[in-house]
Amino acid sequence: MPSDKAPIAVFDSGVGGLTVVKALRQKLPGENLLYLGDTARVPYGGKTKETIERYSEEIGRLLVGEGAKMMVLACNTASALALPRLRQILDIPIEGVIEPGVEAALRATRSGHVAVIGTKATIGSGAYERALRFARPDIEVTSVACPLLVPLIEEGLVEDEVTDMVLERYLGPLRGGSVDTLVLGCTHYPLLRASLARVAGPGITLVDSAANCALAVERLLDRHLMRGVSSGGGALQLTFTDPPGSFLGVASRILGLGAGGTLIRQVPPLGN
Amino acid sequence: MPSDKAPIAVFDSGVGGLTVVKALRQKLPGENLLYLGDTARVPYGGKTKETIERYSEEIGRLLVGEGAKMMVLACNTASALALPRLRQILDIPIEGVIEPGVEAALRATRSGHVAVIGTKATIGSGAYERALRFARPDIEVTSVACPLLVPLIEEGLVEDEVTDMVLERYLGPLRGGSVDTLVLGCTHYPLLRASLARVAGPGITLVDSAANCALAVERLLDRHLMRGVSSGGGALQLTFTDPPGSFLGVASRILGLGAGGTLIRQVPPLGN
Repeated sequence: MPSDKAPIAVFDSGVGGLTVVKALRQKLPGENLLYLGDTARVPYGGKTKETIERYSEEIGRLLVGEGAKMMVLACNTASALALPRLRQILDIPIEGVIEPGVEAALRATRSGHVAVIGTKATIGSGAYERALRFARPDIEVTSVACPLLVPLIEEGLVEDEVTDMVLERYLGPLRGGSVDTLVLGCTHYPLLRASLARVAGPGITLVDSAANCALAVERLLDRHLMRGVSSGGGALQLTFTDPPGSFLGVASRILGLGAGGTLIRQVPPLGN
Repeated sequence: MPSDKAPIAVFDSGVGGLTVVKALRQKLPGENLLYLGDTARVPYGGKTKETIERYSEEIGRLLVGEGAKMMVLACNTASALALPRLRQILDIPIEGVIEPGVEAALRATRSGHVAVIGTKATIGSGAYERALRFARPDIEVTSVACPLLVPLIEEGLVEDEVTDMVLERYLGPLRGGSVDTLVLGCTHYPLLRASLARVAGPGITLVDSAANCALAVERLLDRHLMRGVSSGGGALQLTFTDPPGSFLGVASRILGLGAGGTLIRQVPPLGN
């Protein structure tokens, strides 16, 4: 049984999952958080289910070994492709980002027509469509793979005409149709929120899973009687499999993650 | 001592190294080739030296285990960062793509001012600058990291206004200056040759390392008395650590690699 000081582990392929960390810190300020970004093998979004499962399983075992009491898959690609396998093999509760995003989308839509954007692997998995249709069989879903957005964001082109031109191609066809809700199905995308809102137009509500994921984590903590009781703010430890480079600075500034009290370290090489 | 049927192994992080395969097939049609693309961990271009060395060492040992008589690092990032280490630990001759590119650039330049484009890791390593200055101490070198080009090429945007806009940012400042030679320091970039030539303008000669690498491989074969003697065309075997997805089709079409006689297989998972 992990102690109530045990951290909640947050796992992403890179640094995009820091958007979920931000939401968790706001919602659950007393919890200790252990973030792991698999920057040595980022991105996952173009890889196959087999490889994504293998990487996720390895990271999951590592985080359990670090004493995590719960794991958050703050990566849509891993949530779409590896969550069932991880729930099968790991003994701690696991929350993904897809179910929370789906709940939020269903609360937001009036027209019953929801669009989802994500990486190739996430969209190709059909995970959002399945979860949306399971919850509401008459829902209409339009899915759009947006493989260039992560590279553009990682290059810091968050307010840029190149990015706007790419967004126009991906989202322009949705404007003026019956879609009224757009699910940001990748934890990088909240960094593009302003551009996304501009291109999608005023008739479409953006839903990101970070805030909803934090709510789901809170419910899961209560269900398992696992709330942390640290007095004062919980600690945040950021770990990476390869030094995260300049984007960590960019993300930290955008997300307002203070460096104060944050331990940053590299975990040992993962086998290969 | 490997037999003269032993293959030349060609290694790239993904599928970009197929440009080198094409040049090798033209120059050395009798050689058997074994290509390995580390698609499970692609791209290398944003990762650190430590991680790139570790990945390259593992792939190198695997290729030696497959009976390769020689290894071609058809990846500028791995050539820039891992070649010395590989030459230290592997018992077969190894050719990279940087030295051949440097030779070609020095033959091409009249002004003595050469520009090099590549991934962040390649440019950050300073490998081209060092090699150019070593060969000709008075050379002037301008290096430009172009991190978005690989994702754009992998999305098939090879004749596209988005790619042109990105190229204009990277290369526009070079036009009309003293640079007369541009080294394509990434094996993906020959796929953008037409756009690169248009944006660089008529005053700049493009140099890609593929053809020059094939020449260097021929010299190295002769030096080690390792020429293959297969009658008829050599075989080509393509292997990947994760299925290469749709880009293999795109690249094969662009490069004119026939599927006939080409064996495509996935190598066993690499540790992790």
